[in-house]
Amino acid sequence: MPPKDHESHRRWSLTIKINPPELKDNTADAQRLALALASRLGGGSVRIGLPLLRQLPSVLRSSGYHVTCVVFKEEANWVLVSVKAHTDHHPLLGLAVDLGTTRVVFRLMDIEEGQSYGELSFDNPQIVIGPDILTRIHYTERQGGLSDIQALIVNGFNEHIVRITADAGFRPHDIQLMAVAGNTAMTHLFLGIEPRNIIREPYIPAVNKPGVFKASELGLKVHDEARLYVFPNIGSYFGGDLLAGIVFSKIHRNQELSILVDVGTNAEVVLGNSDFLVACAGAAGPALEGGVSSIGMMAGPGAIDRVGLDDHGRLTIHTLDEKMPVGICGSGFIDLAAMLFMTGAIDIRGRIVRDNGKVKVKVMDDMNHLIIVDAESSGTGEDIAISQASLDSLIRSKAAMFTILETLCLNVGLSLFDLSIFYVAGTFGSYIDPKSAITIGMIPDLPLETYKTLGNSSLGGAAMVLADRDLIAEVDSLRDSITYVELNVDQGFMNRFSGAKFLPHTNPDLFPSVKIP
Amino acid sequence: MPPKDHESHRRWSLTIKINPPELKDNTADAQRLALALASRLGGGSVRIGLPLLRQLPSVLRSSGYHVTCVVFKEEANWVLVSVKAHTDHHPLLGLAVDLGTTRVVFRLMDIEEGQSYGELSFDNPQIVIGPDILTRIHYTERQGGLSDIQALIVNGFNEHIVRITADAGFRPHDIQLMAVAGNTAMTHLFLGIEPRNIIREPYIPAVNKPGVFKASELGLKVHDEARLYVFPNIGSYFGGDLLAGIVFSKIHRNQELSILVDVGTNAEVVLGNSDFLVACAGAAGPALEGGVSSIGMMAGPGAIDRVGLDDHGRLTIHTLDEKMPVGICGSGFIDLAAMLFMTGAIDIRGRIVRDNGKVKVKVMDDMNHLIIVDAESSGTGEDIAISQASLDSLIRSKAAMFTILETLCLNVGLSLFDLSIFYVAGTFGSYIDPKSAITIGMIPDLPLETYKTLGNSSLGGAAMVLADRDLIAEVDSLRDSITYVELNVDQGFMNRFSGAKFLPHTNPDLFPSVKIP
Repeated sequence: MPPKDHESHRRWSLTIKINPPELKDNTADAQRLALALASRLGGGSVRIGLPLLRQLPSVLRSSGYHVTCVVFKEEANWVLVSVKAHTDHHPLLGLAVDLGTTRVVFRLMDIEEGQSYGELSFDNPQIVIGPDILTRIHYTERQGGLSDIQALIVNGFNEHIVRITADAGFRPHDIQLMAVAGNTAMTHLFLGIEPRNIIREPYIPAVNKPGVFKASELGLKVHDEARLYVFPNIGSYFGGDLLAGIVFSKIHRNQELSILVDVGTNAEVVLGNSDFLVACAGAAGPALEGGVSSIGMMAGPGAIDRVGLDDHGRLTIHTLDEKMPVGICGSGFIDLAAMLFMTGAIDIRGRIVRDNGKVKVKVMDDMNHLIIVDAESSGTGEDIAISQASLDSLIRSKAAMFTILETLCLNVGLSLFDLSIFYVAGTFGSYIDPKSAITIGMIPDLPLETYKTLGNSSLGGAAMVLADRDLIAEVDSLRDSITYVELNVDQGFMNRFSGAKFLPHTNPDLFPSVKIP
Repeated sequence: MPPKDHESHRRWSLTIKINPPELKDNTADAQRLALALASRLGGGSVRIGLPLLRQLPSVLRSSGYHVTCVVFKEEANWVLVSVKAHTDHHPLLGLAVDLGTTRVVFRLMDIEEGQSYGELSFDNPQIVIGPDILTRIHYTERQGGLSDIQALIVNGFNEHIVRITADAGFRPHDIQLMAVAGNTAMTHLFLGIEPRNIIREPYIPAVNKPGVFKASELGLKVHDEARLYVFPNIGSYFGGDLLAGIVFSKIHRNQELSILVDVGTNAEVVLGNSDFLVACAGAAGPALEGGVSSIGMMAGPGAIDRVGLDDHGRLTIHTLDEKMPVGICGSGFIDLAAMLFMTGAIDIRGRIVRDNGKVKVKVMDDMNHLIIVDAESSGTGEDIAISQASLDSLIRSKAAMFTILETLCLNVGLSLFDLSIFYVAGTFGSYIDPKSAITIGMIPDLPLETYKTLGNSSLGGAAMVLADRDLIAEVDSLRDSITYVELNVDQGFMNRFSGAKFLPHTNPDLFPSVKIP
């Protein structure tokens, strides 16, 4: 079997043959290897730590000075992670991680070939402390709270590392490189770094560029010398998950003007192309994720995820796993609002129309509700009904989202109509039907083909870093090149927000494709 | 008390005040400090590892963003070692180490002021394995031998670190920086790196530039984040102790042509000035250290360390601690040979003259001996007598030393008479009387003021590194600038060696100051 060489792929692994020492060339083993590696890596210095220095003399000699090395980036330089005889086909694995507040997703990868061996996702074990970041950060302020909460996530990692490696026929020790993308708060909680100032004015993270660590420093049970890259952040509210998403989208490499939006309770947005990038983050409220309504739920069996209209203008629903409906998830809620508007069950201000004849209205707790599914067809035995308050909340959220997008564009003298590509990032975003989101005026009225979903772009970006040794430097320079814009909630913003609180907007010229009923 | 600031001294500690974060400047704590430090350090990046990232938010805020930091060098960049409030006057200590094969010498230092708190020396605990490097290296080839022998020295360090800190009223944990200078083999044995190829052709160390480690990686019980610099080597036979010596002598900074010689069983020599440096190492034999003669001993109570002549041309002796004589140490042996030659007890070839009337001759084991101290005056109850064989051995050693010096000079087209300064390095060297060494033709016949002893230059160089943050880069570039010359024992060398086997030399023009009796 010929030695694997991935020079053309710029992998983190290199197979290299060096000249054996002789009396006339008595450079030490370590410097001999470091020089040869640096030359293949195109410059920089290669640091060889103590554990590798201890292995080097025998590995070099027993392999005939023909070895496969794994390197990683350490600041501007390289660090040697492992060295083995080139004939040793022991696996060299990487683990890409999307470190979400709610879910953690692993992708196991081959460092030499770059391909995936599979994925595994699990609930963030810190959920036992609290589902949201705020509760968790407050918990760290108790005595021992930070180390407790860090242990939860590290133990969760270790447990699932055993599982994902076993599923693919490997061992945890085979993992030599890791790349972790998470929001700023989760990154702090994972590293055991005090996060309290993230949520207190002036909202300062402890660290913007965590960089590269030994996995063992964090208590991760992988290869002894494994290194872990943690994506940088731009601030407390623009985290490494988004930077990973940008890397995955490649908007920073393309000339076309693109926008990338992570839709959720916080809307994080980046706008630009290969010439410039501006970013902002703002609160859109939980309504977009279905988290306010009494019938709102996470995507799961029985969740209404799609809502349409039949020929008579009556609602049709689709549920996940085709189960009896029990609630509505975020993407379903956006669909629902769009359909209610199209069928005339709510008006331009989102008010429930009592006698539209398409959707039944009932009053509970002195408030109008629209019955989406009646008790007979429901999986709960009760009506599934949406309240005026939930609709109001959704409209505020969609208005906030649109205003954030509009404001960021205005900030650089552009219009939303100038956008060539609109990337929707994040798992939740990928379920949103752009047509519905346009109908309610949450996103701009661009041709539907402008919208592209990226899926788990955070995981995708992390995986890219493990497959290409040039990317860490690219991420770092990308981070530094982004201009973060503080969204000032000034009069201009408030005026635009007021205009956006209509369906689809107070200015119909902005939504020519939406035919107001 | 005003904050200490040693900017002018280029210390490793810096007191720095940074701007507190505000909404308009939301750079993270770590990057805020790193940028401020890099600016004060004159560039480069400052790495802040995980343990420091964990302390930073609270230290910065509780100190009002006014802190004292200790940094150290890591490759081309800086690494943060500690951070404390500027009002916290907790000591910041460094430990300079001369890691000798026989003795280890510590010097405890103040990082902020650069001054010494005292020294402590102890036998290298690896002596239980064997007094010499060769035995120790062979021992490492046994199962577990390397870790055994490393544990011996590390435990020895830890034990004496407790002692030297306690003596000065501190704790081991106060030591944040260490600099260790030792020969190449000792450096490998200390770091637990396989040394076997040092003694096998083509004599390759595992590492030339060990660089900087965490002291905890080696099991040293000092500050958790303490860093340890290990001096680089130029090869198996030109170690970090000599590089430290060069740094201490400053020959690389001066225009005058200087030579630096570490006199011992191995003669290590470096020649040059601020424009060039050449180095070589060669075997001189153990005779120069008094290690061959049956009466040879280490310097200690009762050792003859000085030999002179009275007005009648008879030997006078001085012993260490003024005790009854029990043997002769290296410097005494060189004196003795010179005096025996001057008084006519040995001839130009070093042969004992049977009837010179000044020193009594006796025959033992069929060999002529000169009685230096008779049984009555001796501390052993027996004559202290030197054999012809011992004298022959000394003459071979001194001839080798002179030939090495001469050959290195010839190699760069210079004569020994071109030397402006002749540095004698090492503890042993500092006891040699240059006049005696000239008399026997061991060192060139230069004006006596040319000779300067450096004392423990290895320790001195290590201490300098801890007092000046520019020096690590200087040592590394110094290392790269030295041209190491392999001494070819060719016909030219052998011819010069034959000429040097006379007292003082076969060519008396080389030693005009020595009046041949």
